Amino acid sequence: MKEFKVIEVKRSILEDNDADAAALREELKSQGTFLLNLMSSPGAGKTTMLKRLIAMLGEEMKIGVMEADIDSDVDAQAITAAGARAIQLHTGGMCHLDASMTRQGLSEFGTDGLDLVVLENVGNLVCPAEFDTGACKNAMILSVPEGDDKPLKYPLMFSVCDVVLINKMDVLPYFDFDMEKCKEYIHRRNPQAKVIPISAKEGDGFAEWVQWLREEVAAWAG
Amino acid sequence: MKEFKVIEVKRSILEDNDADAAALREELKSQGTFLLNLMSSPGAGKTTMLKRLIAMLGEEMKIGVMEADIDSDVDAQAITAAGARAIQLHTGGMCHLDASMTRQGLSEFGTDGLDLVVLENVGNLVCPAEFDTGACKNAMILSVPEGDDKPLKYPLMFSVCDVVLINKMDVLPYFDFDMEKCKEYIHRRNPQAKVIPISAKEGDGFAEWVQWLREEVAAWAG
Repeated sequence: MKEFKVIEVKRSILEDNDADAAALREELKSQGTFLLNLMSSPGAGKTTMLKRLIAMLGEEMKIGVMEADIDSDVDAQAITAAGARAIQLHTGGMCHLDASMTRQGLSEFGTDGLDLVVLENVGNLVCPAEFDTGACKNAMILSVPEGDDKPLKYPLMFSVCDVVLINKMDVLPYFDFDMEKCKEYIHRRNPQAKVIPISAKEGDGFAEWVQWLREEVAAWAG
Repeated sequence: MKEFKVIEVKRSILEDNDADAAALREELKSQGTFLLNLMSSPGAGKTTMLKRLIAMLGEEMKIGVMEADIDSDVDAQAITAAGARAIQLHTGGMCHLDASMTRQGLSEFGTDGLDLVVLENVGNLVCPAEFDTGACKNAMILSVPEGDDKPLKYPLMFSVCDVVLINKMDVLPYFDFDMEKCKEYIHRRNPQAKVIPISAKEGDGFAEWVQWLREEVAAWAG
């Protein structure tokens, strides 16, 4: 038997996703649950990052992960093995999550008593940026092999994110990736974005990233 | 002055994209122009691959490239510098191209006398797979850093492709990527898919890839 549920989420019948997202944020605020929307390209390292995050924060707060995928449940398996609660959301071919789909996932999950819920969005730099999920903060992972020009090509994604993790720093020597140029492109789109270079494989940068998240979760809980 | 046009393409008002795509393919057949739809995640190496392809095939056939991007024209600049005709299609936030958008691009481009036109689709493994562009064949690039499990997570993309290029073979030693497992996952979705490992940076695998394309272009021209 699987240790996690698989939920088939459906697109909202509500027209006003923004209002729905704002209402969901209010509910999360009253429950004291911090919801982080995590976005990236396919294969940027969302699940590997989360496994290390759970290992570092799992003792001090209760963490749940909602894994959105078109199909398959390999990520929910990995998160469950890492020791956090997880559910798998199947989007049925949808390329993003909206607030209603997020609500369906949270409702099945049951967030009571959870301090931090991470929504691992569909691997896609385009559509997820267009829909407010109701999350308290948006994070994204850009990985070194993808190239430093991605903020120019996917401007909305970089505009909506509070924090950008630059992952796979361990392979930086093997790629033409200019970190200063990348930061400049990100800040051109979003001057407030916090940029943290990390290696989910080796652990570099996690002290800063975990501290950022710790402070956000504490501030949300009030 | 720029050496390439920038076109703002709009979504079709036609409901029946499949019929529109089939009609476009007929027109391309009568003109003897082979249209290749090239898809991948952001940063998998589409433009780098094309630059090498143009260098290898540019003497024996007339090549044009249509670069689809939400914003920016860095790719069209790169292709023009490589010596092929290029236009930039701005999708205005759209996450994919359909047959109507492809037709707008081809019409502005003028395909008369072109043997091969490559449509570099929006970097996205989800939405582009859902829309027939009217292309004669579909190709995709999966890059080693993205991981060998992508065919499990983005099944439709792998189902619709005639050829899958596994790029960035030059960095294989630095990643946990199991080529045999990846091929098995691809063929589980699509037993007919041709899989060619390449390095767009170093040139490995290009003899096989260029030969595949040469034969397809010749067969299409009849």
